[in-house]
This record gives sequence, C-alpha cells and structure tokens, in this order.
Amino acid sequence: MTSLDKLQAQLKDQDIDLALITRPQLIDYFTGYASEPMERILALFVSPTKHILFAPYLDAQDAKDQVSCPVLSYKDEEDPWQVIQKDLLSQFDSPNRVGVEDSQLTLDKYKALSGILRDSEFIDIGSLLDGLKLIKSKEEKDRLLEAGDLADKALQVGLNALKVGISEVEVVAKIDYEMKKLGVSKMSFPTMVLFGDHAGSPHGVPGSRKLQAGEFVLFDLGVLYQGYASDMSRTVFFGEPEDLDDQDKAVYQTVLKAQETAMEAAKPGMTAGDLDKLARQVIDQAGYGQYFIHRLGHGIGQTAHESPSISSSNTSNLQAGMAFSIEPGIYIPGQVGVRIEDCVYLNEDGAISLTQSPKNLQFLPAVTD
Amino acid sequence: MTSLDKLQAQLKDQDIDLALITRPQLIDYFTGYASEPMERILALFVSPTKHILFAPYLDAQDAKDQVSCPVLSYKDEEDPWQVIQKDLLSQFDSPNRVGVEDSQLTLDKYKALSGILRDSEFIDIGSLLDGLKLIKSKEEKDRLLEAGDLADKALQVGLNALKVGISEVEVVAKIDYEMKKLGVSKMSFPTMVLFGDHAGSPHGVPGSRKLQAGEFVLFDLGVLYQGYASDMSRTVFFGEPEDLDDQDKAVYQTVLKAQETAMEAAKPGMTAGDLDKLARQVIDQAGYGQYFIHRLGHGIGQTAHESPSISSSNTSNLQAGMAFSIEPGIYIPGQVGVRIEDCVYLNEDGAISLTQSPKNLQFLPAVTD
Repeated sequence: MTSLDKLQAQLKDQDIDLALITRPQLIDYFTGYASEPMERILALFVSPTKHILFAPYLDAQDAKDQVSCPVLSYKDEEDPWQVIQKDLLSQFDSPNRVGVEDSQLTLDKYKALSGILRDSEFIDIGSLLDGLKLIKSKEEKDRLLEAGDLADKALQVGLNALKVGISEVEVVAKIDYEMKKLGVSKMSFPTMVLFGDHAGSPHGVPGSRKLQAGEFVLFDLGVLYQGYASDMSRTVFFGEPEDLDDQDKAVYQTVLKAQETAMEAAKPGMTAGDLDKLARQVIDQAGYGQYFIHRLGHGIGQTAHESPSISSSNTSNLQAGMAFSIEPGIYIPGQVGVRIEDCVYLNEDGAISLTQSPKNLQFLPAVTD
Repeated sequence: MTSLDKLQAQLKDQDIDLALITRPQLIDYFTGYASEPMERILALFVSPTKHILFAPYLDAQDAKDQVSCPVLSYKDEEDPWQVIQKDLLSQFDSPNRVGVEDSQLTLDKYKALSGILRDSEFIDIGSLLDGLKLIKSKEEKDRLLEAGDLADKALQVGLNALKVGISEVEVVAKIDYEMKKLGVSKMSFPTMVLFGDHAGSPHGVPGSRKLQAGEFVLFDLGVLYQGYASDMSRTVFFGEPEDLDDQDKAVYQTVLKAQETAMEAAKPGMTAGDLDKLARQVIDQAGYGQYFIHRLGHGIGQTAHESPSISSSNTSNLQAGMAFSIEPGIYIPGQVGVRIEDCVYLNEDGAISLTQSPKNLQFLPAVTD
C-alpha cells in the first residue's frame, strides 16, 4: 500500500470528497515529485479515487517526468484559480467535504478556493496528514539513519576546524562546504555554531565572534539527504579540563544526564509529555530548571521540525515508528549555553539513536593553527 | 519618518485600528528585529498609536535587546492565542477593523484571531504593506548595491572553479563557502549552477552532472547581506568559440539583446507589463517566443522575490525607487538554456544595474585542472 493509497483510504473513511495539499514535502511524500515552487502555486488535488498535480508551467515538464498522475499547469500570466475552476475541478465530482491544511493554507488561497467551491464544507486535515507521516516505514528509517550519519560527519568537520581565532561563520562555512561535496543538497536548517556565552541564547545566530581557548562550542546541525532530515547538537570544550570552571561543568553534566535519562526512558505507550517531564526533572533537581526554556524535542522526517511535539503539554502516546529529537539544554544568558541532542527512531523496545557522536564531555586542545 | 511611522499613518488613513504582521522580514523592516521563528508564532501588533512585539519566550530576551517597543512573550507550553487574548489585546482598544496579510496568514491563525476578535472586520493589508516597501530608501539602495557587489564576487568564484569533470554541486559548494567567509549569512535562494542541456529546464536543480568542454554553464545566484538580497544570472561558454554551434550562439545573442533592450527601456511611468512585452518581442521576433516561459522579472528587497512583478499582465506603473530583476531566458528542453539577469534600481532617468558582471558572451578555456 503506497502512502497515497493510505491517504485515499483515510479520505474515504472520513467522507472527504476532495483534498488540497500544498506543502511541497507532502506532495513529494505522496507523489515522489520534489520541488520548491517559491511563491507560485503547486498543489495536489486528491479524491478517494483519483489525483491530479497542479504545477506552474515552467515546472510542468519536470513534474510530468516524475509522477504517474495527470499534471495540469498554468502560466505566469494566467490566474491559477481560474485554471483550477475551469480545467481541474471539472475532473472531480462536485465535492461536499473538502480537506485543507489549516496550518499551511494561506487566507488568500482559502478565499479563492472557497469562492470557487461555494457549496462545499472545508475540513482541516492537517492532523490526518501528520498522522500518516508520523509512523516511519523501514525505508524512511534507513534514510533518517543515513541523514544522521552525515550529521555525525558534519560535526567532525566542525570539530576539526576549531582553532584559536576562527570565527563562528567560518566554521559554519567549512561544515556546509564539506557536506555539499558529499552530495547534501542543503542543510536541514541554518547550521549553528556558537562560542562561549554566545550560546547562552538558544536561538543565537553565528557571527564574526572569534574562538578563544577555554570556551564551550555549541554545534546544532543537520542535513537534508534523499528527502530526509537530520538534526543533532553537541557542546564541546575548547581547552584543557583545568580551564573549565565548576559551574559550567555542572551545567554540562546536568544536560547530559537529562538527555541520557530521556534516551533510556523513551518507550511506546508513554506520553510525549511524560518524556519531557523526565528530562525536565533532572534539570529542575540540579537547580537549573528556569534555564531550560524550550520543549524537550520535536518530530523529524522530511523536515527538521514536524510531529510529534515532545512538550510537557502533549498527552499523546509515543508509538513505535515515530522519530523525534531529545534535546535538553541549559541557557544562562550572558554566561553559558549547553545543549545535547540526538534524534531517535522509536522501536517497540525503546529509542534507537540516529546519530552516534560521543556525548561525554570532550576537551579539544586549543590549537592555534 | 520611520518605516513604522509611515505604516501607522497609513493605518490611520484607512481606518484600520489594529494590524497583525507575521512576515519575519516585515517585522525586521518595521522594528529592526531579525528572527527566524520557524513554526513558533512571532507577530507585531500595530495600532495607529502603539505597537507590541509578540515573541516566543526563548527569543524574548534577544528581541527586547533590539527593539524599542514592549515585547510580550509566551512559553512553549502555553497557547499563544490565549496569551494574546488575555495579556496583549487588552492593551489595545477593541478594534473595529483589523488588518491582516491574506497571502501570509494561515487559516488556523486566522480562525484563532477571528475567534478572539469576534466583532471585528478583517481587511487584507498585503498590498498596503508591499506598497510601503516598494520604494526603496537611499539606505536600502546602498544595501542592495552591496548585496549586488557580493553576487558579482560569487559569480567570479564560480567561474574560477570551472574545470573539466567538476560537478554542478561542487561549484555551488565553492561559491557558498567563499561567500560565507565574506560574512554572507546566507544565500538569498539556493545557488543554481547548471551545465549544458541541464539548463534547458528553468528550475533545474544542481546535481552530480560533470562539466565537459563545449557546454554552456548557467549561474543564478545571490546573497543576503545586511538584510538585503541580490539575484543575478549569467551564462558562459566553457570552451572555444569554434565549439559553439550556431543555434546556441543565436539563442545567447537573442537573450542578451532582450535583456539589454529592457535594461535601456526601463523608465518610471511605463507599466511593468510593457517592459515585459518589450523583452518578449525581441525573443518572439527571433523565433524563440515559445521558449521564454516565465515573466521578465520580480521585485527584490529584503527577499529575492517581492513586488513589483514584471509580468505581461501587470498594468501598474513602474516608479522611481523600485528595485526588480530583468531576466529573460530561452529554454529548449533537452538542448540548451540561457538566462541573463541583473537586478536594477529605478532612477527618474532609468535603470541602474545592481550587478556589474560582463554580459557579452564569455568563452572560458576548458581547463582540466
């Protein structure tokens, strides 16, 4: 049963006569056609029995070469919604219930669509679609492992680049360059390399700050490879053990303990919220609770951020086949930031890490060249 | 008058009591706070007399350091719309008319907002906002020129990298690497380098294809620098003049003539559509009209694609202070693709190019190392 068969079965189950899918990754997921349409409209129309891809004219030939379904296109000078009304919807019976993705569909597109389908009721199928993607197939798991393997390699490039005086952006440039040479079409998010107290902000942006001996270096990186993402964080110390002060060491060990606790505890059947709480407890008990200011993790798949959310308020159960990040962190503004993150694939027995880089505190010699 | 003052004056003029702005670049434009919130909500609430930034808790400190207005934040475990209802909207009078961006606001956010503001009327202020950004200030023009200068440098890196056997993605990697070393935080879109007939698709994706002597190489690239984008295309021939066949040469000269015709013709007061038509005529008359399958250009500013659209159907007048691309192309599937593109800033007298790389057909020696 293909992913599209599963979607069509669910649409039939839920009495949805027509679904409009606009997320490029979902279109890739259901048809195998990967594209970045930018501001032009790319959409997959799916009924329980047929589907049609609607693509900009300049992508139409590529699309036709890659998909097995009919492709309808529109030119830049045409109003795409008129083409949809005239040439596309006529190929479907007039739908009573139309599925759209509320979290993806912009208001202008919704207005255009509901203006054409005046008698239809619109249903949010976002969670239906997320649900289809939540459980990874064997092939998807393998791709996630390959993407994870490349994240391990990317970290190694970054570690090798560290020397006194190098800037954060130079390390980022080296990592991204080596990954592209390995065939990575793009990183799954902008590579993050932060030095010292700059890592005290969890969303810091790499800049021209230069590395000094005796600082933590925080890496957060991942690749997109064969359509699947990886995401890993490591924090290493650039200097000798005697240069690391006690508080910073305690911060590191606390994050590590929280991360390993969650890695070991993750099991199908527990709630996502409970997993978050287990890691949070470790950090709370060490007295750093106020500095762990984000959820424990997020799902991963075709993008670096998808379902499930591993947050204290998520009462859904974890299930075998899910993939998500476990990434506790402690951020003391102006002082220190430590995050340790692996993404995992959940087996019946527990979590399998998609990345293998060591997590014990690494001391890297503070070389100058 | 700051950009925010202008926005507030326009809101007042149009009786809009409250505007919700969610595009990160627009928030940067109006407040100076640049952030990539990913799936979390970042929003600027603006009335004619005050404004409040609403940011995820983990970005709140960074935001407070950078903006002059109040910042309200929410934690991952909170429902942001409840926080907005309880703590934010209470600071504004209850609004009759609320401005939103139909092309940006997703349906779930619209439903949440309209659920809170049940008595309000919602107005699309997308074109009001685009209009504010359409005319570039002196400072913006300078930034566009700096970003353009870096695009020229990026092309030079790419040209220097060409040798027999190098792959498209390797050339991309070298360009992006050298740009990052120059402080470019990211490219304004994925760098495109296509060899030979691979450029016959206008949206081709660089891959492992290896360069051979006697092929065209198409570059389309740009950087983001100090918040402003550049975008340039050049096509060069890798080989000797005698290796270039007559049709391919005619294709190149036709695109060049179309591009130069439009560069010289662009003036305030003509319509965007007329400028498109001028370039299209050149290509039509040479017999390649069916292979010029996209609009002539697009606006540029904080992103590589914004208003105005330079397409045959756009009857709006060009105005001094606008910035946009002029990028005719001819794409014969499976055979050849040529595009030549500069972005320009429009003066009272005509177009000033933001990039300076030569456009006459360049023959690069087919070196092997």
